[in-house]
Amino acid sequence: MFAGDGARVLGVDPGLSRCGYGVVEQTPEGPRALSAGVIRTSASLGVPERLVELAEELDLVLAESQPSAVAVERVLFQANAKTAMAVGQASGLALLAAARRGLPVAEYSPNEVKQAVVGYGGAGKAQVQAMVRALLALPETPEPPDVADALALALCHLTVGPLRVQIGPAAGSERVPGLDRAIAAALAREGP
Amino acid sequence: MFAGDGARVLGVDPGLSRCGYGVVEQTPEGPRALSAGVIRTSASLGVPERLVELAEELDLVLAESQPSAVAVERVLFQANAKTAMAVGQASGLALLAAARRGLPVAEYSPNEVKQAVVGYGGAGKAQVQAMVRALLALPETPEPPDVADALALALCHLTVGPLRVQIGPAAGSERVPGLDRAIAAALAREGP
Repeated sequence: MFAGDGARVLGVDPGLSRCGYGVVEQTPEGPRALSAGVIRTSASLGVPERLVELAEELDLVLAESQPSAVAVERVLFQANAKTAMAVGQASGLALLAAARRGLPVAEYSPNEVKQAVVGYGGAGKAQVQAMVRALLALPETPEPPDVADALALALCHLTVGPLRVQIGPAAGSERVPGLDRAIAAALAREGP
Repeated sequence: MFAGDGARVLGVDPGLSRCGYGVVEQTPEGPRALSAGVIRTSASLGVPERLVELAEELDLVLAESQPSAVAVERVLFQANAKTAMAVGQASGLALLAAARRGLPVAEYSPNEVKQAVVGYGGAGKAQVQAMVRALLALPETPEPPDVADALALALCHLTVGPLRVQIGPAAGSERVPGLDRAIAAALAREGP
């Protein structure tokens, strides 16, 4: 699961109404976005049928993007129990689809993603969008935020993934230099 | 989705460590249990691989039992957020597996199931186990409780399912008479 050059990570921000996805590849010039978007399911359908739609679309994204790893947002307790459950169901499908293809799957909490991409676990949605745009040199701010979150998950895995394989504090020195520089430059531009 | 004679319902009590299932068929003599059990996944594996195991086992149960409908426990907010998420992910897989086979799927909350089977939404696990045993004339108490819960879901759907198709209070008169009698008899035996 070493995320060196050529590593291609699919990030998935799970949801039943909107499921963000983004594919980022590590290149010698730094991380590059290959594709991104939002899967929406028909609100007029029941939950089981919406899950079928989502599973089919996720399989399409996996088939088209051929990632070497998948990063899925770890679902945490949410104030809205009904939404949390739909997100849990959607995340189960994403984990299943990736594991069925034999792909390594990592889960990251929203705070871990923000820490890795913005450098601050409490960052807001707009900050994540701006940093993702800067890090990937995108011509526009990724919209809706679900797309930025998915790309941020992929970026997070490219940075943190190799560290997770290593164990112990010594691993902390092994960062992806290009991403570190880009984060520092973008932070200086954006301010805290 | 009329659950008359011949209707065969698979009940699923979703979970990643233990997923209960039970198949109940409506016969002229009343509801009859065809099979039941618990799917366990390897605790030594990661969540994605466990979800793959669960999905494969659920597909096997569906293929072997050939139900005409599936009833899945509706996941509600739980105190333990981590457990709730695993249950949400497992329920997503169960809904997906059933919907992919074109089967009608109904979700019932634990309280709806207890209300339908025990006649009291606040019933305890032991009461549900005893009522399921009585209603299905089982030689032993179904263990673990996950099995009883799954059979109770199937019984609930056989009773409540036809009412959900009808709309309005008039539908309340359309009960499955055999099950009603069995409930009354067993309640008289068990006490409140």
